[in-house]
Amino acid sequence: MLTLTPLPDIPLVKPGDDLIALIRAGLERAGLALEDGDVLVIAQKIVSKAQGRMVHLAEVTPSPRARELGEITLKDPRFVEVVLRESREVLRAHPNTLIVEHRLGFVCANAGVDRSNVEAQPGDEVLLCLPADPDATCAELRSALGAAYRANIGVIINDSHGRAWRMGTLGVAIGAAGVPALLDLRGKPDLFEHVLQITQVGLADEVAAAASIVMGQADEGRPIVHVRGLPYALREGTAQELFRPKAQDFFR
Amino acid sequence: MLTLTPLPDIPLVKPGDDLIALIRAGLERAGLALEDGDVLVIAQKIVSKAQGRMVHLAEVTPSPRARELGEITLKDPRFVEVVLRESREVLRAHPNTLIVEHRLGFVCANAGVDRSNVEAQPGDEVLLCLPADPDATCAELRSALGAAYRANIGVIINDSHGRAWRMGTLGVAIGAAGVPALLDLRGKPDLFEHVLQITQVGLADEVAAAASIVMGQADEGRPIVHVRGLPYALREGTAQELFRPKAQDFFR
Repeated sequence: MLTLTPLPDIPLVKPGDDLIALIRAGLERAGLALEDGDVLVIAQKIVSKAQGRMVHLAEVTPSPRARELGEITLKDPRFVEVVLRESREVLRAHPNTLIVEHRLGFVCANAGVDRSNVEAQPGDEVLLCLPADPDATCAELRSALGAAYRANIGVIINDSHGRAWRMGTLGVAIGAAGVPALLDLRGKPDLFEHVLQITQVGLADEVAAAASIVMGQADEGRPIVHVRGLPYALREGTAQELFRPKAQDFFR
Repeated sequence: MLTLTPLPDIPLVKPGDDLIALIRAGLERAGLALEDGDVLVIAQKIVSKAQGRMVHLAEVTPSPRARELGEITLKDPRFVEVVLRESREVLRAHPNTLIVEHRLGFVCANAGVDRSNVEAQPGDEVLLCLPADPDATCAELRSALGAAYRANIGVIINDSHGRAWRMGTLGVAIGAAGVPALLDLRGKPDLFEHVLQITQVGLADEVAAAASIVMGQADEGRPIVHVRGLPYALREGTAQELFRPKAQDFFR
């Protein structure tokens, strides 16, 4: 049985907050101690806030390219400027749509830059960028929490991304540590000794999506989810495994 | 808490098998009775087998178009012929890659036609096509099982699909009944009264992905997963909600 438990009563996160202390307190409230094989999924929003990844719209001067894309996408050119600073490449620009390759290597809308849920001062708006290095943050949390509980655990940072071909956003892993992010089933024979056609499973994305179900979307109340019962052994692994190289992508 | 329980000891499925009886027996072995709000996720493979959706490769005559695509994709032209019969349109054809719009409306590789896990006679190979009408099957199962347990439940049929931009397959919903497949959060205010930027969540896909974690890939041992604790009310809904119309897709 796989169980996903959102940790209760996580307070709003502010720049400089100690995520490790936050997670440990949440686990205690849930009556959970981390055990070997457990995975924690953490919403990118609280990592970004703890890291102070805010940008004040009033302080942004848009480049000519940002102005041009702002006209095409009908988005505030200052917002577009922040998106471009977080991006390697623009894939699509249409009214209300700006799809980019994020500087971290994955494809998403608006480089994950978010206006929602960030308290604004009057006369200003605050944008929230994705965490600086989600894989590194996952590795730090894994190490510190693993030591605290004497357990071999995995950590995933998730975000909600739109996708090609299908409607609606999906929780995906933008950072990971200690989990088989891309699960390799190549060569494992099936019941009748065929070689499997399906070779690789995006396991960390499946776990990220599962956690997203119980996180909800509209507030910060459940940004940390404890996962127990993953039927695969943990190993070293990062979310980079999940980002398809441009040269191998027929849909860029 | 969200729990996902794979039903134990599901036998291999053959054409004509009664899925309702199979599911009820599996629930009994798991010590579970369906309750209001529960969702069952069923692997497409056992639905396809129960429906007899096999095609014998030896009986297929490839069309000129299938031969042409077979040369491009390095796939057996008879296999390609079966894929084309299950497809509306070919999106990409490259060596080892054939991406189509399935006749049901979603985009996937090889129209979901599978060689794995299907017992072959000597000298022949058996292909397995996707279920005839997964939404209709989900509706039937929902109605029959809901009546048997006097419970309002949801049913999802899932499959493992590759995707643009990211590596690895992901469990997705190809059929659904009774679940908010596309969860509409438009207009729901966040903590600071902003309007949410994220508008729609692919909830049935998230549930399909979560179930895929415990189903495994290499055999049929765990093709039915019981899900309890979904934090959203059930409603009428089908997987069609999740299939992005071609005109709204910038990555076709």
